[in-house]
Amino acid sequence: MTLHELLERAREGTGLVISERDVERTLAALCTSGDLWHVIDYSDVPVMALCRLLEAMRAEGIITWDTARIQFSPQGRTLCEQLSIRPVRQLACPTCRGRGLDLRALGRAGEAFAELAASRPSALQEFDQGYVTEESTMYRVALMWARGDLEGKDVLVLGDDDLVSVAAALTGAPRRVTALDVDPRILGFIEDAARQHDLPIETVEHDLRRPLPPELVGHYDAFACDPTESLHGFLSFVQRGLVGLRGPGGAGYLGLTRREASLAKWREIQKALIAQGSVITDIIHGFHDYPNWPYIRTMTAWEHLPVKQEPDPASCWYRSDLIRIELLEASAREQSLLEGDIFNDAEAATT
Amino acid sequence: MTLHELLERAREGTGLVISERDVERTLAALCTSGDLWHVIDYSDVPVMALCRLLEAMRAEGIITWDTARIQFSPQGRTLCEQLSIRPVRQLACPTCRGRGLDLRALGRAGEAFAELAASRPSALQEFDQGYVTEESTMYRVALMWARGDLEGKDVLVLGDDDLVSVAAALTGAPRRVTALDVDPRILGFIEDAARQHDLPIETVEHDLRRPLPPELVGHYDAFACDPTESLHGFLSFVQRGLVGLRGPGGAGYLGLTRREASLAKWREIQKALIAQGSVITDIIHGFHDYPNWPYIRTMTAWEHLPVKQEPDPASCWYRSDLIRIELLEASAREQSLLEGDIFNDAEAATT
Repeated sequence: MTLHELLERAREGTGLVISERDVERTLAALCTSGDLWHVIDYSDVPVMALCRLLEAMRAEGIITWDTARIQFSPQGRTLCEQLSIRPVRQLACPTCRGRGLDLRALGRAGEAFAELAASRPSALQEFDQGYVTEESTMYRVALMWARGDLEGKDVLVLGDDDLVSVAAALTGAPRRVTALDVDPRILGFIEDAARQHDLPIETVEHDLRRPLPPELVGHYDAFACDPTESLHGFLSFVQRGLVGLRGPGGAGYLGLTRREASLAKWREIQKALIAQGSVITDIIHGFHDYPNWPYIRTMTAWEHLPVKQEPDPASCWYRSDLIRIELLEASAREQSLLEGDIFNDAEAATT
Repeated sequence: MTLHELLERAREGTGLVISERDVERTLAALCTSGDLWHVIDYSDVPVMALCRLLEAMRAEGIITWDTARIQFSPQGRTLCEQLSIRPVRQLACPTCRGRGLDLRALGRAGEAFAELAASRPSALQEFDQGYVTEESTMYRVALMWARGDLEGKDVLVLGDDDLVSVAAALTGAPRRVTALDVDPRILGFIEDAARQHDLPIETVEHDLRRPLPPELVGHYDAFACDPTESLHGFLSFVQRGLVGLRGPGGAGYLGLTRREASLAKWREIQKALIAQGSVITDIIHGFHDYPNWPYIRTMTAWEHLPVKQEPDPASCWYRSDLIRIELLEASAREQSLLEGDIFNDAEAATT
């Protein structure tokens, strides 16, 4: 049994991109833990591809599972030995957990944000919501500050269930923050927070499938966005952000996950970002942690999971990376209207 | 006086790419420190462009300098006020200093490496040498480990004045490490270390302007390289690394600095990396610190520096970022021979 045969079997009849390295990463994650959610996290293989790989490995007698855990068979252990597969090493800095940043400089903004966010609206599957931890949001704001994209700047937040606008404004650094969202609950929450703390935030109810409202075009120094993961959806959301920028020198902060995007899709995204006039200045792995969201049993991937057990609420399995881009060349200001289902492709796991 | 006028003046008659954002970053760095070396570090503007910008700012009466420090004139302070320029915020994590990684897991390898490296050969201008701190090298090895590119793997190091081969092998993780260098002093040092500690390292004397020796092509899982910063030189060195890989799934670890490469050059590099079949998975800012090297007064930039004072030996001003790429598509195995001066272009500051 070679890695290639395993991936051919897993890929059969699906539209999924799976690489030999994905098979290797899956085996390494299985050497590290028998808990499905840890395997997802350690492997960094898109969830839908991982489910297929696990199925193929079971069919080949490499692994078995019961209602709680996944185990290697003796044959599977021999395979790992032959391929010199080793357990995954978790080497994240214990202080910043891999972000490389210091939150202390943000002072009391962090505490104020955690207090506010405790009463935030819950995540809705309808809008592909699922917010990151408060800590992740504060780290994102810290990165914007460190890169010179926050203090004295006008910031545009495209889709704000993470409440980036509130966290950013609480630092007192930005000149102005505009938060766009389709969900009136989120906007209402942000407006209340802004009133309560006297923050320079304005809110706009807007569906990002539609072009950026003309009065927002070309007025911002930086934007933040967690686009949906389909290739077309991702790039369209980014394009909305780019047209919001004043021009070259503006920056974008994008969340992109490995859980629902293969590296092949990452590469297409990077190619497009560069073609749109940007350079990528930072890619920080595992920057955003997601607490478990309420609709986990109805997400697309659930029926494909080998072990139907909800994740331990204290542990994190869904993460996304942070990508910072800086615009070097004026970008095209034409914006397309997105129609139909922009959330789903073969890699979509949580919609 | 606008940012645009300043950059037009600075750019005049040079082949340098300078952006308005570079002018802004320079002003922000000057708001933070009057020490030239700190300004270089905080601004992240290529040194040669920064020298021109400082000259233009002095000509416009925005700054003055004496033999020790740079100061804003009252007019300069007003300009910063008008443009809402704010000091640079240093928000690096105090534990990992921005790398996001934990060195403790490397155990005694770090101490053993520091001990060995204490007697390393000094950096030579002739070969564009200038090694990173021992800590930076250990962090690079930690990242390779965390990404699954070290343990049980065959690693190729292209140009090894940083002694990555020794640090990697001291962890006991890699199966085999091959170090290529043009400098017999470096190779001799690595061979001695390998004998002394019984490390699985082989050395090859090789000038990277020449194609990778055929017996090394297609034999490695990962490579590490700090290419020279000219665009053609950078991409050719990377190409040597890519042809050394077994194929898709292999990874490359590249050092790239902002000190001698504009973001416009970064973008060209990224475009080429992606075109060569790679995806970029990590870009970690300020990953490598360089201690001051012995030939600072003869480096290209010296005569352009406004303040001719050597940097404080305890502080660091030259840093480079770490880029990890992963190969997704088989790359072309044709390699060009590089002739003439591959080290210098308009942005070269330290050769």
